[in-house]
Amino acid sequence: MSTMLRRWLVGEPLPTAAAGEQKLPKYLALPVFASDALSSTAYGPEEVLLALAAAGALALGYSVGIVIAISVLIAIVTFSYRQTVYAYPSGGGSYIVAKDNLGVLPGLFAASALLIDYVLTVAVSIAAGVAAILSAYPALLEARVGICLAVLALVVMANLRGVRESGLAFALPTYLFIASFTVMIVVGAVRAFAGLPPVVHPAPLHPEGPLAAVSIFLILRAFASGCSSMTGLETVSNGVPVFRPPESRNAAITMVTIGGTLIFLIMGLTLLARHFGVNPDLTLRETVASRVAEAVAGRSWIYYAVQWTTMLVLVIAANSAFAGFPRLAAVLGGDGFAPRQLRNLGDRLVFANGILLLGILAGVLLVIFRGETTRLIPLYAVGVFLSFTLSQAGMVRRWFRLRTRGWQVAAVVNGIGAITTGLVLVVIVVAKFIHGAWAVVVLIPLLVLAFRKVHAHYDALSRQLTLAGYTPRRVLRHQALVLVGGVHRGVVEALIYARAIDPDCEAVFVEIDPAETPALRTKWAEWGQGVPLTVVPSPWRSLTGPLIQYIATVRQERGLDMVTVVIPEFATTRWWHRLLHNQSGLVLKWRLMFQRNVVVTNVRYWVK
Amino acid sequence: MSTMLRRWLVGEPLPTAAAGEQKLPKYLALPVFASDALSSTAYGPEEVLLALAAAGALALGYSVGIVIAISVLIAIVTFSYRQTVYAYPSGGGSYIVAKDNLGVLPGLFAASALLIDYVLTVAVSIAAGVAAILSAYPALLEARVGICLAVLALVVMANLRGVRESGLAFALPTYLFIASFTVMIVVGAVRAFAGLPPVVHPAPLHPEGPLAAVSIFLILRAFASGCSSMTGLETVSNGVPVFRPPESRNAAITMVTIGGTLIFLIMGLTLLARHFGVNPDLTLRETVASRVAEAVAGRSWIYYAVQWTTMLVLVIAANSAFAGFPRLAAVLGGDGFAPRQLRNLGDRLVFANGILLLGILAGVLLVIFRGETTRLIPLYAVGVFLSFTLSQAGMVRRWFRLRTRGWQVAAVVNGIGAITTGLVLVVIVVAKFIHGAWAVVVLIPLLVLAFRKVHAHYDALSRQLTLAGYTPRRVLRHQALVLVGGVHRGVVEALIYARAIDPDCEAVFVEIDPAETPALRTKWAEWGQGVPLTVVPSPWRSLTGPLIQYIATVRQERGLDMVTVVIPEFATTRWWHRLLHNQSGLVLKWRLMFQRNVVVTNVRYWVK
Repeated sequence: MSTMLRRWLVGEPLPTAAAGEQKLPKYLALPVFASDALSSTAYGPEEVLLALAAAGALALGYSVGIVIAISVLIAIVTFSYRQTVYAYPSGGGSYIVAKDNLGVLPGLFAASALLIDYVLTVAVSIAAGVAAILSAYPALLEARVGICLAVLALVVMANLRGVRESGLAFALPTYLFIASFTVMIVVGAVRAFAGLPPVVHPAPLHPEGPLAAVSIFLILRAFASGCSSMTGLETVSNGVPVFRPPESRNAAITMVTIGGTLIFLIMGLTLLARHFGVNPDLTLRETVASRVAEAVAGRSWIYYAVQWTTMLVLVIAANSAFAGFPRLAAVLGGDGFAPRQLRNLGDRLVFANGILLLGILAGVLLVIFRGETTRLIPLYAVGVFLSFTLSQAGMVRRWFRLRTRGWQVAAVVNGIGAITTGLVLVVIVVAKFIHGAWAVVVLIPLLVLAFRKVHAHYDALSRQLTLAGYTPRRVLRHQALVLVGGVHRGVVEALIYARAIDPDCEAVFVEIDPAETPALRTKWAEWGQGVPLTVVPSPWRSLTGPLIQYIATVRQERGLDMVTVVIPEFATTRWWHRLLHNQSGLVLKWRLMFQRNVVVTNVRYWVK
Repeated sequence: MSTMLRRWLVGEPLPTAAAGEQKLPKYLALPVFASDALSSTAYGPEEVLLALAAAGALALGYSVGIVIAISVLIAIVTFSYRQTVYAYPSGGGSYIVAKDNLGVLPGLFAASALLIDYVLTVAVSIAAGVAAILSAYPALLEARVGICLAVLALVVMANLRGVRESGLAFALPTYLFIASFTVMIVVGAVRAFAGLPPVVHPAPLHPEGPLAAVSIFLILRAFASGCSSMTGLETVSNGVPVFRPPESRNAAITMVTIGGTLIFLIMGLTLLARHFGVNPDLTLRETVASRVAEAVAGRSWIYYAVQWTTMLVLVIAANSAFAGFPRLAAVLGGDGFAPRQLRNLGDRLVFANGILLLGILAGVLLVIFRGETTRLIPLYAVGVFLSFTLSQAGMVRRWFRLRTRGWQVAAVVNGIGAITTGLVLVVIVVAKFIHGAWAVVVLIPLLVLAFRKVHAHYDALSRQLTLAGYTPRRVLRHQALVLVGGVHRGVVEALIYARAIDPDCEAVFVEIDPAETPALRTKWAEWGQGVPLTVVPSPWRSLTGPLIQYIATVRQERGLDMVTVVIPEFATTRWWHRLLHNQSGLVLKWRLMFQRNVVVTNVRYWVK
């Protein structure tokens, strides 16, 4: 039953031999790695406006300056990471770069930040994608969380089936997204230069008056919120080996293209929003991108193209986290910092455990934050910027260590990257601390602690399991004890089994009601298969207590290394039959599980 | 930990030898058996008034006639059961009498009715007891369900500890209850004959106007509700052996005393209520007994004595069901109609499973019906009257069969009992069918069906387990297979164990990643203890599939009767360590559980 369900959901299993990487041309690699970064256009500029709106409509003018600052930051990070791409042709995720150059602990911090961020990428991307659709179809607003979870479930299932990220199906949405936004920006720019009014006049800001004064803190908070646009910028550095040769060069070109496109999109959207006077919707019913598209082109095909391609690219972005998270979790599992089963390849050659874990965590976030992007944003950028900083600081360290040709310039580029992203990290944590960033600040070190605990356990385990210096014993002094509660076929079969594994086995009867013993002895004489029977009295009617006591006595008196307790058991075909039999066997098994040098063996007798 | 908690809650275990019955003098036996019957005074007359109130205040006058009819019924049932007491000196519960005289099926119907009734007795008694207290202290009204559950928990715990029903602590509340009600009735009667007005003028009926017309159906419904006063009348017949000799005579005297007292109490309460014009409270905030006490004596000590002794006697009545239900369940378990573990004596020589089951069922009822007596009443009397009818019909059959001296008169007495209670049963089912009686009407035959199913299973089991005609095999062809996933100390220990139980054992390695196999073979040469190693390829990375396949092949090729699969396992001291190990062993065990002729043995290696 469960197997059939799994086959239907996930598909037939694939043989291990089917694994293998595919090399990608740039035009396919770009969409694979770009979706995460570019899709953040859908929420980054909006978050800047939402934060500024607290100081009223006039404060929205600051958004242009803030987005320019973010664009500069994007350029810095892009060029900094460009160097990582060259330095780590086999893939240089933050965890690897930080671990390699700064040590294990910073590596774990980077890993912790990345894992948290993958979860948030999924939650934020799905929430923002659904928001785009809800803007176009407000009738669906009530079902926001439900739609989010349905989309999440689809993405999880597709990943368990093992989607090929590199397919055209994945490339197309990203290109369509770039195209539809470009059309919108160009049309909007033309209308702006022609001095035409917006097609649909934007809704006023509601409430109109300022709730807070424009302060440095407010500006910083808007900036911090906008930095969510920079998530996903580093993905190329993880996947250099996927590019066609020359891998690093192609990856670097792709990296810079992504950075440039991202700047174009967020600047374009922000300038149009300012030009047409678009305000953010504080009730979160409509996105800024939806309002800008409406102002530029009304509810035309351009509008719907923008909404649907936004949704699609965000789903693809969420999907990219489903590649990244399980891969990083598997690497951590391989290094002994996370449970080893995260390395297991599922039926379809994917890290199924990691995929499920990510799906569950993102689902919980979507439910808690009711599928609203803006509630999730304060948690988001902390992890990204911590991993940026660690990765680039690691690169600086690397240049100082290797001192290859031109290392000074490279170190300066990465140094600027590390310092600026480090500063931004501080800004983000401070500006959004009470809004939710504190949770991530607390969680990252806790996760690091967990990694270390896990590692310590695996370490201790391998030390205890090592064969070096181990001398196995020659002979195992062993005896089988059969627990009997009566004499019937099931018991006789268990006796025959016990005699097969130990010709000197013994039967034990725990005497709860002494009145039953004489009848048992009589039957034993005929059916006991010659196995000696010991009656252990139990004046308090406990089965386990006297048995455990007796086992201990036997082990000591006979100098046994190991005792096997054979328990005859009924196996029935109907579940409710189990309720009709004494479950004392279960209690007994549980208690014996904590006894060392005792092996419990159930011999089942099948009942029709 | 759990053992310590149990000791604290339940007490130290008692040795089996401490069991044994105590003989009771009449003055102690009366309260033991009377609490259930007498305590129904607290809700029976009230239910009559509540049912009549639907036809307005004037209709309440019918209550006197209805209670007289119920009193006649009590007298009939009392004299009918008096004969059962003589006929079954060793205890004649309805199940035994019906089974003995009418056959197994009627016996099971009686048992089913009785079990349901015990559950309702607990729920109704606790609800009514709490209602008495809430009448005195209305500030507690909000906590009704909570208080009910707390009282229930106390009663359950007391019973798990093994209360001695016969103690003075149990006798006193019943006597105090009789005393306080008698004082109230006498004082009320004196005031009535003296022509004095009520001390507190009773609250008007609200809503005042009639909701329904006075019809035969309404009168019958009031009568049916009032019949809840008759529950518990039969308890003496279950416990004849507890009386001092001459047992039957003493039991019969007690029986008649209880019947007389019950008639006195319900008539007294009803007449006072009518004389002082007491109306039932349709909002269920105050009981009729509380209003009568108030009318007779104001909020004096008499009032509080009535409320508290009502509460106490009802708790004792609930407690009596905790003696009856587990005992009947154990009898059914012994006869193979109910799970056998209901016969198990707990630490304190009580049928702990039955006590817990009753507690859970009553708790569920209290929660569903929000602890309100009147909502529970429609379910209540159906079971009682079915068991009355079956038991007395059984007695009639008995007289016709045995034809002892004077059997004709005895048969007429029991016959009248059977016919009247049978008619009342029909009235109750019809009058209260839509109010809840249907649930019991459906449940009773379902329970009978379950009893028969259980019996059929035990029957089939004993047929399959019988040693008659059974020839055990002489030799068991057996091999042990050790499942290895690598080579370390844990695996080596498992190998040594496997060799001890089967010198010709074999190791099996399911090859998920073929790259690991050569290293394993190398290590095996050194550490394999000379056990041959078989590598089973698994191109789809499943552990269980190829293993089960291999076991089947081995069994067939080597003609084995039984295969033992030895699985090396880590045993760790911290629960979270389990999460860090592949749980594929669990899945494997589960799958192998459904394989016949396969025994799974875990050899644990303890890790610090």
